[in-house]
Amino acid sequence: MDGRVLVPWEQNRDNAAAALRVDVYDGDSEPPADLSDVTFYVVPYARRQAVGLLERMPRLRAVQLLTAGYEHVLDVLPEGVELCNARGLHDASTAEHAVALTLAAQRELPRWADDQRRHVWRPHFTRSLADSRVLIVGYGSIGAAIEARLRPFETEVVRLARRARPDSGVHGIEELHRLLGAADIVVVVTPHTPETEGLIGAEELALLRDDALVVNVGRGPVIDTAALIAEKGRVRAALDVTDPEPPPADHPLWEAPGVYLTPHVAGGSAAFYPRARRFVDEQLRRWAAGEPLRNRVRPGAG
Amino acid sequence: MDGRVLVPWEQNRDNAAAALRVDVYDGDSEPPADLSDVTFYVVPYARRQAVGLLERMPRLRAVQLLTAGYEHVLDVLPEGVELCNARGLHDASTAEHAVALTLAAQRELPRWADDQRRHVWRPHFTRSLADSRVLIVGYGSIGAAIEARLRPFETEVVRLARRARPDSGVHGIEELHRLLGAADIVVVVTPHTPETEGLIGAEELALLRDDALVVNVGRGPVIDTAALIAEKGRVRAALDVTDPEPPPADHPLWEAPGVYLTPHVAGGSAAFYPRARRFVDEQLRRWAAGEPLRNRVRPGAG
Repeated sequence: MDGRVLVPWEQNRDNAAAALRVDVYDGDSEPPADLSDVTFYVVPYARRQAVGLLERMPRLRAVQLLTAGYEHVLDVLPEGVELCNARGLHDASTAEHAVALTLAAQRELPRWADDQRRHVWRPHFTRSLADSRVLIVGYGSIGAAIEARLRPFETEVVRLARRARPDSGVHGIEELHRLLGAADIVVVVTPHTPETEGLIGAEELALLRDDALVVNVGRGPVIDTAALIAEKGRVRAALDVTDPEPPPADHPLWEAPGVYLTPHVAGGSAAFYPRARRFVDEQLRRWAAGEPLRNRVRPGAG
Repeated sequence: MDGRVLVPWEQNRDNAAAALRVDVYDGDSEPPADLSDVTFYVVPYARRQAVGLLERMPRLRAVQLLTAGYEHVLDVLPEGVELCNARGLHDASTAEHAVALTLAAQRELPRWADDQRRHVWRPHFTRSLADSRVLIVGYGSIGAAIEARLRPFETEVVRLARRARPDSGVHGIEELHRLLGAADIVVVVTPHTPETEGLIGAEELALLRDDALVVNVGRGPVIDTAALIAEKGRVRAALDVTDPEPPPADHPLWEAPGVYLTPHVAGGSAAFYPRARRFVDEQLRRWAAGEPLRNRVRPGAG
């Protein structure tokens, strides 16, 4: 196998086919002095400076990112270099956080945390997740991961995506308004596009039942923040993403009644690493075998 | 069918067999003036005064409680009256709360709630539930309900009960020490008995890995509070039950590092009511058909 592979983790080197020449660069330590023979570069996670090494790799043929986003690399990536992203590697973490937020809101965990802080023991009956009808808006791989986790809680899950997929029980966006009115909980997992911006606005929030819960682990601008605040707690929300993000310190969202915030941490948990390492192992296996890489977002020279 | 049945919910009356004479007493409104012909009494939930009606029911043959505990009724229940409790009706709610506590601790939800209160957006990588090995101590119907909810989170669940049940993959209590050392998360769901008091004490906590999490939705005295506090955050805990319960306002448990508290609310959520109503429907069906009642904790006269 011609050239060298640069990977972020020892495991990837240890698991690589014998035919591959593999070096480890974790993004923190000093990179290898000579990068001129690197043909496949797995960019270390959350290390922006690691992208800068690209310009020292004249023989580069493929780049693997460990983020889903890849726009920041397009400008510096030479023509003809194949680019792969990390689609799917954050699914378990994001789905887990979506359910954590849902349970926290239904079982009032932030209230109990506040009571603990004040040394107060004041139990009362809460809502439950059981028996809830949960509408997942933006049903894809993360939505499926959320559904798998929700089902054993004795919930009913309703799937909605841009286009209906009747064979998979997925409703199309044209049914959003009807389905909002029948939901107890709405989980938003859509990306931010011109079509999804403000998708959950004043009109949509008004369709929700009193005390319904909206969870957002997608992107902040999908929900109209001003419209949510105007609901004054009639509709509750648990948001991992916001608009603006982060909210300025004096923004009313911080104290909006019935609104819980986490700081865009859904994808950022320990669940990421083992999945990312396994994925890089698999990409290296494909690379060594001459098979097409997975998660290609830009083709190479051939 | 001879005699009358007293139930707490309209649904039970509406669903009862035509042969039954059924009245509704919800524990808040005025009870029927004449109770002399009541033969089966379903005591309203969380209404202590409702137990007092027993002495006005000379023809009583069976009592259905909506709590798991029944000791408070034994003293006032005449000989020969059959007694049934609510075993299982809180399982869904309790299992849901156990998972909520587990996720909250792994994903640091109390920290984010605290940051929100201070208008601070300060993300960092957290632990996850995914990839955790979860030991359930006191594996029974609630343990099984917890396991069903944990599995889709890509966890490994290990079952432990008083006696080993090898056919069901349940380890016996004699393996507790070995299994504690291999667990990331320990969920305690045992009742309080002489055998379980202090079951998780200083020795057991010392066996746990650094940063392991102990969740308690069983009974407070199963965990040695002083020993837990002495861990100083090396082992984390999420407790719905405590010893003493509630902790006095100046008790160190309130501010013990890595300890999250909820005020004994695991069983007390909206999930209870539909399950309790369905159960009472089924008991009435059995009563009308002359079949044995479920959940009998004390036999009747015949």
